Amino acid sequence: DTQEPDIHFNREILDRMSDRRSDGEWLASRRASPETVFLLFHALSPLVRSGAEREEQIELCKLRSTAVQELLTGSRTLEVFLGVEKQDDGQPAWFALSTEDDPSQLLQDKDPGSFFLQEAMPGLLRLSDDDAGVVAQARSVLAWHSRYRFCPTCGSDTKVEEAGYKRTCLRAGCRSLQGVHNTCYPRVDPVVIMLVLHPDGKQCMLGRKKIFPPGMFSCLAGFVEPGETLEAAVRREVQEESGVQVGSVQYLSSQAWPMPSCLMIGCHCVAVTTDIKVDQNEIEEARWFTRQQVMDALVKDKQAVFIMPPRQAIAHYLLKHWIGCNANL
Amino acid sequence: DTQEPDIHFNREILDRMSDRRSDGEWLASRRASPETVFLLFHALSPLVRSGAEREEQIELCKLRSTAVQELLTGSRTLEVFLGVEKQDDGQPAWFALSTEDDPSQLLQDKDPGSFFLQEAMPGLLRLSDDDAGVVAQARSVLAWHSRYRFCPTCGSDTKVEEAGYKRTCLRAGCRSLQGVHNTCYPRVDPVVIMLVLHPDGKQCMLGRKKIFPPGMFSCLAGFVEPGETLEAAVRREVQEESGVQVGSVQYLSSQAWPMPSCLMIGCHCVAVTTDIKVDQNEIEEARWFTRQQVMDALVKDKQAVFIMPPRQAIAHYLLKHWIGCNANL
Ligand SMILES: Nc1ncnc2c1ncn2[C@@H]1O[C@H](COP(=O)(O)O)[C@@H](O)[C@H]1O
Ligand SMILES: Nc1ncnc2c1ncn2[C@@H]1O[C@H](COP(=O)(O)O)[C@@H](O)[C@H]1O
Ligand SMILES: [Mg+2]
Ligand SMILES: [Mg+2]
Ligand SMILES: [Mg+2]
Ligand SMILES: [Mg+2]
Ligand SMILES: [Mg+2]
Ligand SMILES: [Mg+2]
Ligand SMILES: [Zn+2]
Ligand SMILES: [Zn+2]
Repeated sequence: DTQEPDIHFNREILDRMSDRRSDGEWLASRRASPETVFLLFHALSPLVRSGAEREEQIELCKLRSTAVQELLTGSRTLEVFLGVEKQDDGQPAWFALSTEDDPSQLLQDKDPGSFFLQEAMPGLLRLSDDDAGVVAQARSVLAWHSRYRFCPTCGSDTKVEEAGYKRTCLRAGCRSLQGVHNTCYPRVDPVVIMLVLHPDGKQCMLGRKKIFPPGMFSCLAGFVEPGETLEAAVRREVQEESGVQVGSVQYLSSQAWPMPSCLMIGCHCVAVTTDIKVDQNEIEEARWFTRQQVMDALVKDKQAVFIMPPRQAIAHYLLKHWIGCNANL
Repeated sequence: DTQEPDIHFNREILDRMSDRRSDGEWLASRRASPETVFLLFHALSPLVRSGAEREEQIELCKLRSTAVQELLTGSRTLEVFLGVEKQDDGQPAWFALSTEDDPSQLLQDKDPGSFFLQEAMPGLLRLSDDDAGVVAQARSVLAWHSRYRFCPTCGSDTKVEEAGYKRTCLRAGCRSLQGVHNTCYPRVDPVVIMLVLHPDGKQCMLGRKKIFPPGMFSCLAGFVEPGETLEAAVRREVQEESGVQVGSVQYLSSQAWPMPSCLMIGCHCVAVTTDIKVDQNEIEEARWFTRQQVMDALVKDKQAVFIMPPRQAIAHYLLKHWIGCNANL
C-alpha cells in the first residue's frame, strides 16, 4: 500500500507502539519474555557479525534476555524500547541497550571472534534493509542521549523517562518542567538534499566535498534553518554552496540518516541561472553533468567521469530517478 | 519563479547572508548604519503596534540604530542578524534584539501607548505576510537561545557566536568542541500535518484537541520521530491519534511555525481503513467530513457543522487545496 522507494535506513519492521512507553508493567513483562530481542550498542556502534549469506554484509547481533541479564539490571545501561514486530501480531518486542563498557567482551566467550562493534560510516551501509531500519531508530535516539544528558535550560542533570524517549530535568523549579518543551525530546534535524537540474533539462549539478572519496560527486545538501520552509532551504543552500539560483522545487522522497539524527528531505529543483561559483569552505568543486555522464556513472562504465554516491544514499536515488531507470538497474 | 502558496510565516523578504555571520567587521558596520532595521523582542514577544491600515492587523516596530543605542551596547541584549533586504541591493540589514527588560518602556516616551509586546498565539497571526516571515526566523532563533543556554553535553554555560546562530560550550575539553555537533546549532523540529482522505475520495478526517475553540476541527499532526521518514511519521501519527491506517502519502507544502521552532510538513494521505478510535490523551474527537461540509465551513456558511482552522495555518491550506477552490475564495 506504499509507493515509497525502499531506500536504506527507511524500512520499518517494528511498530513503535508509543503508547506502551509509559506502561512500566508491560515493558517489564516484555523485558522478561524469552522471545524479546535485545540489540547492544557501545559508543553508538551496534554489535554485529559478518553476514551469513554475503561476505560484504553485516548483521545485527540479536540477543535474548538470558544473554543480557547482567546488562539489564546494571545501572549504567541505557535502554530504549524500539517496538514490536509488525508481522507476528505484536511478538516479539525489541529493545536497544547502550552499555558503557565494550559489550563484545561479554559475548566473545560464547562465540569467539564472531561479534564486533561496527562504526557508523560506511559500515552501517552494509546492514540488510531490515536491520538498517532498526538501527536508524536506535542509533538516532542513543545519539541524542549521548549529547543531551544535561538540561539545556538550566544545566542540571536529567533522568530518562518514557522508555528512552524523554529526558526530564532533575532540578525542581526548572522552566523546562512547566508545559511541554522540546528540550525534553529527541532531536531530529531536517536536512534538504537536492539534485539541481539545468534549465536545459539535459544536465544536473553535482558537487564534491574534500572528504569525499576521489572522483565522487553527489547532490548538494544543507540543514533547514529556523523559520524556513523546505523550498526556501533548498534555494538558500544551493545559492550558498554553488552561487546558482533555483526556481521550482519538487519534493521526491525522504530518508532517515542516523548520523547523528537527520531527516534527509530529497528534492529535485530547477536552476534559473547556470554560472557556478562554489563556496570553498564547504565544496571543493561543483559541475554540470550530462544525462549520459550520469548514466555511465550509474552503470560504473569505464568511461564514467565521476563516481556515484553509494546506492544506500538518497542522493543516489535522486540521480537514478532523474535518469528514469528502473529499480533493478 | 516559485510556485509555493503564500502561507503565513513563509514569505522571505530578507536574504540571510549566512556568510556574513562570522564577519565581525561587516556586522559592526551594519549595526552602525542609519539605514539598519532593529526589531525588539522581550520574552519571545515582538514589539508591535496596531496596523496603520487595518484595525485587526499589527505591525512590527522597526527601529533605527539611534533608538536602540543603549540596548546595542548593553551586555544583557541578545542580538541575531536576520539578513539584508532582497529588493534593495542588500540595503538595509535587519537585526533582532532580545532584551531582558521590557523594551516598551524605552519607547513609550516618544510615542506613548502605541507600542506593545505581542504574545505568540493567536497574536502573531495578525502580522502582515512580510512581517510574519521575519518573525518566523527571529522568534525561532530566540526561542532556541531561551531554552538552550547551557551545553547539553556537559551542563556548562555557553557563549553566543556567528551573529546568533551558534552557541559554544565554555568548558575547555568538552566533547561538543571536537568536530561538529548539533548541540551548537538552533533546533528545528519537523512536524507532519496531514489531511486524511477517505478511501471513497468524498470525505476527509479532521480532529479536535480540547484546547481548540468550540466547534473547530483541524488536520492531525505530530512530531517526526528519530529514524523515521516523513511518510512513516504520517502513517504512525494518524494511526496513533485516530486508529485509521494510511496508505499513500503526498507532500504538498511546508510552513515555518515559530512556536517555538517547528517545520510543518503538510501532506495529503489516503486512508485504507475508516473506523475511528481516537487517542483520548491527544484528541477529543475525530470525524469524517464531506466535501460539502468542508466547503460550508470554508465560506463560513450558516449551515457549517464545524469551524475551519485560521487561514494562516497550513491546515487551512490543506483543506482548501482538497476542495480545489482558488486562492481568493
Ligand atoms: N544541526 C546541525 N548539525 C550540524 N551542523 C549544523 C547544524 N546546523 C547548522 N550546522 C552548520 O552547517 C554546516 C554544514 O553545512 P550545511 O550542511 O550545508 O548546512 C556545519 O558545518 C555547521 O556549521
Ligand atoms: N520536539 C518536541 N516538542 C514538543 N513535544 C514533543 C516533541 N517531541 C515529542 N513530543 C511529544 O509529543 C506530544 C505531542 O504529540 P504529537 O504532536 O502528536 O507528536 C507532546 O505532548 C510531547 O509529549
Ligand atoms: Mg547550512
Ligand atoms: Mg551549506
Ligand atoms: Mg551542505
Ligand atoms: Mg507524536
Ligand atoms: Mg500524536
Ligand atoms: Mg498530534
Ligand atoms: Zn533544567
Ligand atoms: Zn560542554
